[in-house]
Amino acid sequence: MIFSSLEINKEEPLYAQIEKHIIKSIEKGELKKGSKLPSTREVSELLNISRNTIVTAYENLESQGIVLSEKGKGTFVAREAKIVKDDYNIHWEDKINNYGKTCETLDIIKTELPWKKGMISFKSIAPEEKLFDLEEFKRSFLEIWSLEGEKLLNYGYAKGYKPLIEYLLQYMREKGVNTEGKDILITNGFTEGFDIILAALTNAKDIILCEEPTHNTALKIMKAYGLKILSVPMDEGGINVAQLEKALKEESPKLAYLIPSYHNPTGIVMKGERRRKVYDLFKKYSVPIIEDGFNEELLYSSSPIEPMAALASRGNGVVYIGSFSKILFPGLRIGWILADKALIDTLESVKRAKTIHCSFLDQGVFYHYMKSGAFNKYLKKARKIYKNKYNFTIQQVKEYIPHEFIMGEGGLHVFLKLKRGIDSREVLRLCYERGVLFTPGDIFYNNSKEISTLRLGFSRLSEEEIKKGIKIIGEVVKSLE
Amino acid sequence: MIFSSLEINKEEPLYAQIEKHIIKSIEKGELKKGSKLPSTREVSELLNISRNTIVTAYENLESQGIVLSEKGKGTFVAREAKIVKDDYNIHWEDKINNYGKTCETLDIIKTELPWKKGMISFKSIAPEEKLFDLEEFKRSFLEIWSLEGEKLLNYGYAKGYKPLIEYLLQYMREKGVNTEGKDILITNGFTEGFDIILAALTNAKDIILCEEPTHNTALKIMKAYGLKILSVPMDEGGINVAQLEKALKEESPKLAYLIPSYHNPTGIVMKGERRRKVYDLFKKYSVPIIEDGFNEELLYSSSPIEPMAALASRGNGVVYIGSFSKILFPGLRIGWILADKALIDTLESVKRAKTIHCSFLDQGVFYHYMKSGAFNKYLKKARKIYKNKYNFTIQQVKEYIPHEFIMGEGGLHVFLKLKRGIDSREVLRLCYERGVLFTPGDIFYNNSKEISTLRLGFSRLSEEEIKKGIKIIGEVVKSLE
Repeated sequence: MIFSSLEINKEEPLYAQIEKHIIKSIEKGELKKGSKLPSTREVSELLNISRNTIVTAYENLESQGIVLSEKGKGTFVAREAKIVKDDYNIHWEDKINNYGKTCETLDIIKTELPWKKGMISFKSIAPEEKLFDLEEFKRSFLEIWSLEGEKLLNYGYAKGYKPLIEYLLQYMREKGVNTEGKDILITNGFTEGFDIILAALTNAKDIILCEEPTHNTALKIMKAYGLKILSVPMDEGGINVAQLEKALKEESPKLAYLIPSYHNPTGIVMKGERRRKVYDLFKKYSVPIIEDGFNEELLYSSSPIEPMAALASRGNGVVYIGSFSKILFPGLRIGWILADKALIDTLESVKRAKTIHCSFLDQGVFYHYMKSGAFNKYLKKARKIYKNKYNFTIQQVKEYIPHEFIMGEGGLHVFLKLKRGIDSREVLRLCYERGVLFTPGDIFYNNSKEISTLRLGFSRLSEEEIKKGIKIIGEVVKSLE
Repeated sequence: MIFSSLEINKEEPLYAQIEKHIIKSIEKGELKKGSKLPSTREVSELLNISRNTIVTAYENLESQGIVLSEKGKGTFVAREAKIVKDDYNIHWEDKINNYGKTCETLDIIKTELPWKKGMISFKSIAPEEKLFDLEEFKRSFLEIWSLEGEKLLNYGYAKGYKPLIEYLLQYMREKGVNTEGKDILITNGFTEGFDIILAALTNAKDIILCEEPTHNTALKIMKAYGLKILSVPMDEGGINVAQLEKALKEESPKLAYLIPSYHNPTGIVMKGERRRKVYDLFKKYSVPIIEDGFNEELLYSSSPIEPMAALASRGNGVVYIGSFSKILFPGLRIGWILADKALIDTLESVKRAKTIHCSFLDQGVFYHYMKSGAFNKYLKKARKIYKNKYNFTIQQVKEYIPHEFIMGEGGLHVFLKLKRGIDSREVLRLCYERGVLFTPGDIFYNNSKEISTLRLGFSRLSEEEIKKGIKIIGEVVKSLE
């Protein structure tokens, strides 16, 4: 019987294997047109698999016109010779457009050295999950579940879960933002917020003004969209005002992307007079600001600062992107855009065309968690722990790594520049051999050939690991001096 | 005192109101340069608000250089006259690009007649949430919570939650798909899957081949990307083979988007010989197929059919997009792309640039729910209920609405064409006055001026509502004959 030669593998569904075996037997000429196939019962017994599986295989072959089943008589081969032509193969690499290629080329997870078990990695700036208050979160889940479980599992609204939107509007008001004429769109974190804004407002070759250095994910997304990045250097107080005015005047950018309150990666907080001047310049040249509210909640060495969106008052020139992902539940992917009402209305349609809406279950649980007061309790605890780690890290860097500067007024990382133009990639290569990883600073730069900076994320490391890792980095740096 | 005239509103944060009031008083000349402001204690008592609020307002004014605080002496006005320039206003409408405009113009939620309380709406094709098995879902949540709660709340992987990917690979194998050399990317439902594929593979003006009619959301997304839609008409067996070959030969489309197994909106299942022929044509012309696996799980009057991706065997020419959103938990936004491994690798980078990843909490709970066997139990129950509603709807349409055809072999809706070229938009207008809503068929067409079709979704309506609504539609149609 033809099935004696069939060897079952685990990769494919059984009935597909049976189909293929029959097709091959026809192709090889072992089964001719008109030949009767063994009965499903016989095959089932021989191969010791369910009869239904064989029935499915025979039915599929019949629907393809390869066999023909006659009631009461059995199943017969209906065609001869070559049935399956060569596999249909596409060379996908040739089909990827510039957007796709840029996303891949600049995807640091694929291009940077990978973490291996046992290594001390300063790469992560994700929050330490052990700090999350799981009991409170579960309570929030159970509470909202009993209130509106089934509703949260069905389609919701593109703009977001209404109570969460109201909560965030109030949260923004508490930060000093005038929400009159403004609205909020819930997004899958900062990343989707930024993606939606660029998708709706920019065309390839548009000029977008940024700080130099700036957030590497933002750089990646802007480059993928084919935007021309107009980088304005920073000094220790923030973006350089004279160079900013020159850039605004000479290049007429369409938009600006700024991280004014806790800059990534430098950690600079742009304050007082400088902040106002920068804002006024954008106003003067009518260039809208996309403000990244990154890490506003995690300042340690300076007092909380209003977002730039607060300076705008009733004006609508600032589009604010918020996210709690650096302190709370990044796995849920909840962020928001606060902007002019009419603009949000358009962005809501864009959101609907991209992901329809964010998980209503997550939004509901998140809202209940925030509203319960658990967030403030958690924030207090987390700030204290992170602040200690931050101080410890700074102290260790000062002790072990020869540096030109250390920057950052809070957050989950410090940013430093090595002395005498030492190449941080070379440092990384040597540290990697000794089990230590960090983020080389060059990925945050667009124009400058800045080779001596690096970012050290400390949020998920113990003091012991921080000390050990920094000592190794220090030794490597010294060996290169 | 200057604060006697301040009227507090609820829209803005208190301290912002105090700031503005002071600025206005300076502008009006009520406060001159050098004037001393009332002490924070006085203002606090007068307005009966927390002293901290006043302190914040004064500090903000100071950081803007508007007032100056002198230790032990008080706070003084530092500037004169006009301080706040005109608000910085952007006319956002002028900034929206074609993509954003198209998303908005084709956003049917904003353009179609809205549901009002008490109306019978045949518009929805979402699942009936009352059928969801909430207890099983909660159990899955609690189970995975105790296993890996904190991990699910932190950043995860762009490709998705690994056990869910494994589960879906097996699910696809059971559908007859050969998963060798293939991989899966988890997306926010079908919509994000389609968005990611178009973002990575197409450029404006590329030609994409589709069935006519086709899924209106897909039409919207393709148009927003500026693609040229090459529509090939369907007959009752699926896409017309002769016209398909002509289109492939003459127009060399870059891609095709097809809904072969349960077509939206017609409900046509493309079977056997036709299916194979269509597949072979795409292979012959080397045009990749994006297959929308819409509603495959909800066939009633024909037996389950393998997706086209199964015909591809080891070939990589078919990119399959799957989603359970029409049967299960659309609120969670979980869908997937199954495709060539190298292509998924690129799409994973695109996903990371757009939304980083889908909620790991949702993926985890969803996986546990599916794995527990609850899905199969639920599917059996839901299919039975939907099948009854489907049969009931067909029967009611036959009884009350004069029609040329009724289409659909399952799913959550039927598609019909009225007799004698009656305009379904006119029917809708009149039905709306009588409290009945449905989806006019024209939104599913690209080229044809098809005015007589309509889609009736029945999933969330009772038999009583279905009967009442269809009777009204029938009466309106008859009144127009």
